[in-house]
Amino acid sequence: MNIIKDTLIKVKGFEFSAMHSGVKRKRRDICLVKCAKGSISAGTLTTNISRAAPVEFTAKSLKKKNVSAILVNSGNANACTGIKGIENCKEIIKKVSELINCEKEEVIISSTGIIGKQLEMNKILPSLPILKKNLSEKNIDLLPESIMTTDTFEKKSSIRFESENLNFNISGFSKGSGMIHPNMATMLAFVFTDVNIDKNLLTKATKEIVEDTFNMISVDGDTSTNDMFLVTSSCKSKNNKITSENEEYSIFKESLFMIAKDLSIMIARDGEGASKLLISNIIGASSKENAKLLAKSIISSNLVKAAFFGNDANWGRIICAMGYSGAKFSPSNINLNLSSKKGNIELMKKGIPIDFLEDKALNILTESEIEINVELKEGQYNATAWGCDLTYDYVKINGEYRT
Amino acid sequence: MNIIKDTLIKVKGFEFSAMHSGVKRKRRDICLVKCAKGSISAGTLTTNISRAAPVEFTAKSLKKKNVSAILVNSGNANACTGIKGIENCKEIIKKVSELINCEKEEVIISSTGIIGKQLEMNKILPSLPILKKNLSEKNIDLLPESIMTTDTFEKKSSIRFESENLNFNISGFSKGSGMIHPNMATMLAFVFTDVNIDKNLLTKATKEIVEDTFNMISVDGDTSTNDMFLVTSSCKSKNNKITSENEEYSIFKESLFMIAKDLSIMIARDGEGASKLLISNIIGASSKENAKLLAKSIISSNLVKAAFFGNDANWGRIICAMGYSGAKFSPSNINLNLSSKKGNIELMKKGIPIDFLEDKALNILTESEIEINVELKEGQYNATAWGCDLTYDYVKINGEYRT
Repeated sequence: MNIIKDTLIKVKGFEFSAMHSGVKRKRRDICLVKCAKGSISAGTLTTNISRAAPVEFTAKSLKKKNVSAILVNSGNANACTGIKGIENCKEIIKKVSELINCEKEEVIISSTGIIGKQLEMNKILPSLPILKKNLSEKNIDLLPESIMTTDTFEKKSSIRFESENLNFNISGFSKGSGMIHPNMATMLAFVFTDVNIDKNLLTKATKEIVEDTFNMISVDGDTSTNDMFLVTSSCKSKNNKITSENEEYSIFKESLFMIAKDLSIMIARDGEGASKLLISNIIGASSKENAKLLAKSIISSNLVKAAFFGNDANWGRIICAMGYSGAKFSPSNINLNLSSKKGNIELMKKGIPIDFLEDKALNILTESEIEINVELKEGQYNATAWGCDLTYDYVKINGEYRT
Repeated sequence: MNIIKDTLIKVKGFEFSAMHSGVKRKRRDICLVKCAKGSISAGTLTTNISRAAPVEFTAKSLKKKNVSAILVNSGNANACTGIKGIENCKEIIKKVSELINCEKEEVIISSTGIIGKQLEMNKILPSLPILKKNLSEKNIDLLPESIMTTDTFEKKSSIRFESENLNFNISGFSKGSGMIHPNMATMLAFVFTDVNIDKNLLTKATKEIVEDTFNMISVDGDTSTNDMFLVTSSCKSKNNKITSENEEYSIFKESLFMIAKDLSIMIARDGEGASKLLISNIIGASSKENAKLLAKSIISSNLVKAAFFGNDANWGRIICAMGYSGAKFSPSNINLNLSSKKGNIELMKKGIPIDFLEDKALNILTESEIEINVELKEGQYNATAWGCDLTYDYVKINGEYRT
């Protein structure tokens, strides 16, 4: 199983199109996906109580047996928009269902962009027939750009799996929580596959995978009103339908995990103003829950994030962040080291700091990808979390006055 | 009850001294308090699992009936120092108990400063007899400086209460979690009073008050290894000993609350690199717990903090922070406004954003003290939290490479 990075491979049973509606100044800002009859979706939505209007509709659609169309717009999140925001969703869904010729409940919609402004319906509605007209399998490569807000690069990843009795394609893309323009904040990820699988199993795999991927990244700890991770399968692959957790299920789930992990890491790497990707690995915790709490707490600490911006091997802040994570562990068990392409440096053994060469540490930490490795020897549970450093640009980006 | 700011008033039954031991380059860095026979202490200690050595000893001392001496040093936190750190504590406590002529368990010690370095015993031990020699009631004013690390100003506050059957003095001082020098992080607060009160009631009042004061401030969400809030009474005031939650108890508790609140707010105001004090008021939540979660979540959000640095009336981030706080509330109930000396501006009514004049907002937000007022109309529970903005200086201070 190898990840294909440069381009998104076609996936049987899906047609795509994207265009510039005018909601955003320049770039493509709206896209449509038509799913073959019998397509199924599984997803996880934001836990934020202030859910945006489109998220409410998507929550309902996910309960339906099938999905027929997915419409995503960027530039406006349709969040905190009250009754009017709901009505706009209804109107868009109605138009899409007419164009695709499907039930309204089989349309999934998603928005990202400014909060608190009504959708520019005069730009979105006229775009829908054009999107319909341009649907094609190969247009999938246009979609990553069309959902970007302040992302600095497209985030996409594909896997093709071929064996005697199992063949499938997976293509996914995501966007990070860029917030350069005030009131923007969302993580979106869409994955398309053609594997033939039972909907309950697709849902199970999706929910389990999100726990170890998208839920383990943090840019600034803020959970958006619009976050969505959606996995859709056309079930058009010729494999015997996966209806139990057999070997085929494991292979597909592993592929889906690789895609989700790749898409999550790209979001962390592209965090606002970030100059470094931080990876914290907890090894040997007493429970999975503790391992996750510790890994997440380290990469979420402002003090840790600022220290790495300063290329500072500041183990004290790492220990401190572990201490208030809520996880149970014994500080006297901690072995801690930092590593990068340039090498590895030990900072702590059994909870006691080790003298280290500042020059060696500095040389290792100037890399753009740093691993924080913590060994606890308290059990066999591990966890990894991904984040980024805290930089002047983060403050500039988010402190900038709206104009 | 009026707060006295300019100077710390004397408190019957306490003698103080502070000096420069040399652990810090210039300023006074160690202080001693001698408590009259029969003095009692109540305190709350850091919840961080990686507790510093002195915190472990203080936890034990607080269980004792009486306290005789308190020794605090700044410049070194004696945290993550293993067995050697514990032994150093024991040696210091032994020396202090000999000098003050009390049981070892009646000595409370506290440290703040660098983590992971052993205490410079060659500087601390010789200072102890000198501290003892200079003990005097009036020296209390020297102590606020002696516990500072990277604080930019002394944090002190006093109250004198006089009525027919109740007289007492309270003097308190604190230090914030300055982290200019890497590996520094601690909030310390010491309050001294002479009110005659039962230890269990002093403990109850202290624990209740800390919930609405020190536990409601946030500079960067990091909980230190050394945090401590200690309230000590000599019980030397002539009032009838307070042994029940009567009117005298209420008056004293209210005074203690005022001091604790004042000392907490000064810490938030002096947050690293802070240019603004942020006060979030939640009014009419369905429970006290929800009110606190919401108030704390708002002032802890990097996005909210950065927005106020940019004088940006970014209500979207406030709503977002409330949404992921974990508190139960209905977004459609939210009335939101911001206020400062310059006036008040409404941003949201019943969950719907209100158009506002950017110029008016900017004028209000350029003040150094901003109140974020959220009305929920869901119950009668209120809460207030204090924080500060996220600035370039915060990143500079915490990203600066150690030298």
